[in-house]
Amino acid sequence: MISRVLAADLHQHVGEHVMIAGWLHRRRHLKSVTFLVVRDRSGLAQVVLRDQPPGLPEETVIRVEGLVTASAQAPGGAELTEPVITQLSAPAAAPPFDLYRPAVTAGLPAILDHAPTTLRHPVLRAGFEIASASVAGFRAALDQRGFTEVHTPKIVQSATESGANVFGLDYFGQRAFLAQSPQFYKQALVGVFERVYEVGPVFRAEPHDTARHLAQYTSLDAELGFITDHRDVMAVLRDAIEGMVTGVRDRAGPAAELLELTPPAVPAQIPGIHFTDAQELIARHAGWDPTGEPDLAPADERWLGDWAAAEFGSEFLFVTGYPMAKRPFYTYPDPDRPGYSRGFDLLFRGLELVTGGQRLHEHADYMAALAERGEDPAPYASYLQAFEHGMPPHGGFAIGLERWTARLTGAANVRQVTLFPRDLHRLSP
Amino acid sequence: MISRVLAADLHQHVGEHVMIAGWLHRRRHLKSVTFLVVRDRSGLAQVVLRDQPPGLPEETVIRVEGLVTASAQAPGGAELTEPVITQLSAPAAAPPFDLYRPAVTAGLPAILDHAPTTLRHPVLRAGFEIASASVAGFRAALDQRGFTEVHTPKIVQSATESGANVFGLDYFGQRAFLAQSPQFYKQALVGVFERVYEVGPVFRAEPHDTARHLAQYTSLDAELGFITDHRDVMAVLRDAIEGMVTGVRDRAGPAAELLELTPPAVPAQIPGIHFTDAQELIARHAGWDPTGEPDLAPADERWLGDWAAAEFGSEFLFVTGYPMAKRPFYTYPDPDRPGYSRGFDLLFRGLELVTGGQRLHEHADYMAALAERGEDPAPYASYLQAFEHGMPPHGGFAIGLERWTARLTGAANVRQVTLFPRDLHRLSP
Repeated sequence: MISRVLAADLHQHVGEHVMIAGWLHRRRHLKSVTFLVVRDRSGLAQVVLRDQPPGLPEETVIRVEGLVTASAQAPGGAELTEPVITQLSAPAAAPPFDLYRPAVTAGLPAILDHAPTTLRHPVLRAGFEIASASVAGFRAALDQRGFTEVHTPKIVQSATESGANVFGLDYFGQRAFLAQSPQFYKQALVGVFERVYEVGPVFRAEPHDTARHLAQYTSLDAELGFITDHRDVMAVLRDAIEGMVTGVRDRAGPAAELLELTPPAVPAQIPGIHFTDAQELIARHAGWDPTGEPDLAPADERWLGDWAAAEFGSEFLFVTGYPMAKRPFYTYPDPDRPGYSRGFDLLFRGLELVTGGQRLHEHADYMAALAERGEDPAPYASYLQAFEHGMPPHGGFAIGLERWTARLTGAANVRQVTLFPRDLHRLSP
Repeated sequence: MISRVLAADLHQHVGEHVMIAGWLHRRRHLKSVTFLVVRDRSGLAQVVLRDQPPGLPEETVIRVEGLVTASAQAPGGAELTEPVITQLSAPAAAPPFDLYRPAVTAGLPAILDHAPTTLRHPVLRAGFEIASASVAGFRAALDQRGFTEVHTPKIVQSATESGANVFGLDYFGQRAFLAQSPQFYKQALVGVFERVYEVGPVFRAEPHDTARHLAQYTSLDAELGFITDHRDVMAVLRDAIEGMVTGVRDRAGPAAELLELTPPAVPAQIPGIHFTDAQELIARHAGWDPTGEPDLAPADERWLGDWAAAEFGSEFLFVTGYPMAKRPFYTYPDPDRPGYSRGFDLLFRGLELVTGGQRLHEHADYMAALAERGEDPAPYASYLQAFEHGMPPHGGFAIGLERWTARLTGAANVRQVTLFPRDLHRLSP
């Protein structure tokens, strides 16, 4: 059997007899000729039939042998003529909507209910190619900087990070929880590897039904030791984001083109603003007063995104120095500004994409921080042990992959860029 | 502040004043001189003190500025003299065992109970560097072959794969389960991307307390479409394994050296034996009769591993054609040998490392297979929908990362190469 050629490579084989294989994407019957479009992982290929076309419906899997012929009208500049068609699966049932139409004609619920089929649409699939390329770029950037990849437990003994929004489970008769983040493990592993990252699922029993929350999402976590302060973490985060953009450019060119996606420029130094300055700016110019809350609302973030674009020409903005009251107990306080922290968020196009910061590294500081919040240190015992045995100043961050991909591709809802999303109402497919 | 130099790079800076940072790994007091050994992520560096040494215990985090001086006795051929030492954390409490001794002097339970600290021992840490490098090599091999990385749900509606050994959880008031594998998702995604892989956690409520079972492990899953039969899957698996070996060689050289690890040669064609032939061979030569069971016992696998080493000089052996009775319902039957399948295992040094095979791809075949096993197709509805809309012949495999690493490093127990393992008795740290 002749070996298979991908649709995207067809033009390199003009004059040869080759075989292509894929899904029957589209049929067009004209008076004396029929065009079949075959879809494979690389793109679309056109097949020209002069005689009776086979009565196969769209999405049927076929193999086509034929002569590659140059054609200015065909996708990629070549098409397959004199075809011999072999069917590789039973005739396909009609998909929930026409996958061959350039635009997606179904609403999000229909797309998600039938995801195994609907994600075949090139526009829907493209988002996941962007995500995959982004993750590869993230890893490449951190690999180059001496990080070690780790895989940590997703079943944990204590619902320590926040207590709320945690999934419980029965673990051999014992109460256990799904990990909301690899936070404690990645910190402990700074003691082992200095610099670690993990790409993996995290779980939140998120009771809010919003366009940006999921019960399971993919977290790109990193943590590094021997920092001076949070700015060293921000510098590595900046490089990781640049790696993700490079990943998209190098590995997902056709998907980016299909989605008409413009990868952002990552400034050598991403501009930053202190939390209090951000609040003042919003109070003075945005027309509302955010200073009642020690946090930024989505509308505040959007306003700051526009401001950073106008002021610095940057689609990224660091907000630094979040109030300690809004950050977890392991956050390192700003020694110069009581009540404020060395925690930061990174906004991308006006949306919080990353949370990070410097962490406490002295055991005594952990005990004091827990006592101040009135928390019992006992459930944290296995977490705290690393800090008794020498931990360097360290910090890290977590990027939400789906948020990144949604923001990059312009998807209005993170579910659109999540394979089989999980939320309050959705546990299947 | 002068920027930091890693221990492994010290010899490149002879004659310069530099700064190193890390953990105080070891102190040796001689009559007129004290040697401090500093450990960082790259290795060990020696610091020479002529005056009074600081009274810091091992594992304290320090920064040392000094003059790099060539020394044949020092690790790497250079040491730091005229040092100025700065303490970066409070004096460390003594670790559970001396991390500076070349051999690990603690037993497995003590190592695991205090993992955040004990994994700092260079020998224990090295196993995870091997694991990380293996995963990077796995991805590189598949990326080069047109695979797309995916992230699939770990919370699922039906305990479909086997029903037994599954963790249940409460999902917003609904019964749900932790995924035992990404099997159904990776198959559906062949319809979207043709070739996919996932590196992620899988969960088994494994009631057996053995040296090779865990409640959570890292599965390296791959699935590919447009195959002729299972041999195409085996060829890609062979390439993935070679990628893992290459990853170890290229990215974890020092760890491999420390563990005196010999990476296996991966034959261009890994030898294979049919299940029935393997059983006959064992019955005839091994001194016991395995033919009562339609499966291979661990002793059978060890015997076959030795046989393959003697017969083919290979540390790898495919066992093909497992009986349908021992394989899941989605397994593709061997059309030429009723009762046997196109499912295979890959043995590595006499241990089952990988399970894989060709899968059914016709919807009607799924319905027949479920009916034959007396199973209701209803819980599989969302899984089966992809097969109604055109799926190519496909297959795949799953490599257990911890088994691979244990076999490669000679660890007797998979827990030794698992960061914070989860099992029947262990939910912490």
